[in-house]
Amino acid sequence: MLDVAIIGGGPAALSAALNCRQRNKTVKIFGRSLDSSLLYAAEKVDNYLGIPNVTGEELLNQFYAHALKNGVEFQECRISQILSMGDYYVVNAENQFIEAKAIILAIGLSKSRGIPGEMEYLGKGVSYCATCDGMLYRGKKVLVVAENGEGEAEANFLADICQEVSYLPLYQPVTALKENVKVLEGKPVLVEGNEAGVTGLKVGEEIFGCDGIFFAKNSMPPESLLFGLNMEGKNIAVDRRMATSLPRVYAAGDCTGAPYQIAKAVGEGLVAALSAAADIDQMEREKK
Amino acid sequence: MLDVAIIGGGPAALSAALNCRQRNKTVKIFGRSLDSSLLYAAEKVDNYLGIPNVTGEELLNQFYAHALKNGVEFQECRISQILSMGDYYVVNAENQFIEAKAIILAIGLSKSRGIPGEMEYLGKGVSYCATCDGMLYRGKKVLVVAENGEGEAEANFLADICQEVSYLPLYQPVTALKENVKVLEGKPVLVEGNEAGVTGLKVGEEIFGCDGIFFAKNSMPPESLLFGLNMEGKNIAVDRRMATSLPRVYAAGDCTGAPYQIAKAVGEGLVAALSAAADIDQMEREKK
Repeated sequence: MLDVAIIGGGPAALSAALNCRQRNKTVKIFGRSLDSSLLYAAEKVDNYLGIPNVTGEELLNQFYAHALKNGVEFQECRISQILSMGDYYVVNAENQFIEAKAIILAIGLSKSRGIPGEMEYLGKGVSYCATCDGMLYRGKKVLVVAENGEGEAEANFLADICQEVSYLPLYQPVTALKENVKVLEGKPVLVEGNEAGVTGLKVGEEIFGCDGIFFAKNSMPPESLLFGLNMEGKNIAVDRRMATSLPRVYAAGDCTGAPYQIAKAVGEGLVAALSAAADIDQMEREKK
Repeated sequence: MLDVAIIGGGPAALSAALNCRQRNKTVKIFGRSLDSSLLYAAEKVDNYLGIPNVTGEELLNQFYAHALKNGVEFQECRISQILSMGDYYVVNAENQFIEAKAIILAIGLSKSRGIPGEMEYLGKGVSYCATCDGMLYRGKKVLVVAENGEGEAEANFLADICQEVSYLPLYQPVTALKENVKVLEGKPVLVEGNEAGVTGLKVGEEIFGCDGIFFAKNSMPPESLLFGLNMEGKNIAVDRRMATSLPRVYAAGDCTGAPYQIAKAVGEGLVAALSAAADIDQMEREKK
């Protein structure tokens, strides 16, 4: 079991990981490639104290090298869900399940809250994880809306369980779908439903009736990643220790709110790491 | 008038100053020399992301050079008091009075809350500024307790006003006292007083009766630096914007609480600077 699983890949994640290592904790970063960070594209950065006048790419590479040198591991993947198991958490990294005593969310700016109805029907027909929830739709009609190729494996898995699986790709090309998965075209507009849950998805002007909708997303709205996580508007709610509403779950960087700046992210990453290390130590003392 | 006066000299102050410059604000740091920072003595620092494995001295020099390159000015001095003038503040820098629209306190760990009775009788016989309060003791008996040579000028000034001035130096050597100032020896233990205010100072086992005691300190307890500043224990109370209880006064770094780490200080310095810049802009828009 890991001491700390860090979800992210930007400055906050790297600073948190570096400082977990400094406290002798095992740590792994689960994130997308460095070049997907917004910082990577920055032409000039001159306000991170001590490193004047660099490109975002140079700075990220310096950050990454520093973390690796201290034993930080990095796994390039998408995280669809994190489950609380009481005194530890399970991270679903593309259907590999990783256990960790503490979680640090450094997931950056949440780009979207999804389409209308998506949050409303989360857990009532909307899901972000076929492996977790697929069995609930045995013999039923489901739809997979995918921002990336991960969705194909999800759809194929569902095709073995469900009566009918349709697939709405928001990317190109689609390469590995089973034959009994029907491919749709168009832009998802609205999740439809009633008191019992989801009844369909509006795609363009058309409505496709279904019992469940699985979204395979590039980035997840934080509150759907981790059940019970309190938000303040679109930011993850944190205290001065960077602790969230859930035990041993911390957040750092842009996902906690403005200013969206490197030094803030790096500082919060450090604080989150030290809080995580201290809280893990305390939990383990209490167990003895 | 300065846009922002920063009190400090460590990583939080330098990051705040750098980021004020980035927002095109005039800024000056009022602080002690770099080598008085606790960081200066650190043999090895390896957890400030991006700058692996340096000495504290190297890192501070890198920080300092980055700030200077961006037009940050630095004045080596001690600050004894900051006064609110409504829509601006006046900083007393060794009896030079500097006006600023906003203040960032990056004063590090408050080393002492003083001796017993010191805070209790603050403003009732205890003062940190002879220039400000000396006239209140015209014709009376006062004592100056000095951690540094600044105290000699204070004592000499008081010697022109007061009936009797005694001087208790906590440093060596004493070089420039007027002849009518009496030099004491020993360790200050306790401020004595009654409902009317200070009655004397206990030095070792002996009590010296007096009407007022002036302390010349290397670092000031924050709440005596700035009237009305709310504390949380020994930390300056701040919100997530690093705003204190006073308008356009911010705090950053060790003075806001643990962890006492560079990345936290640098991040908070940035946040304080951006908050100050935004609040100054808003105040000026409202004036129009």
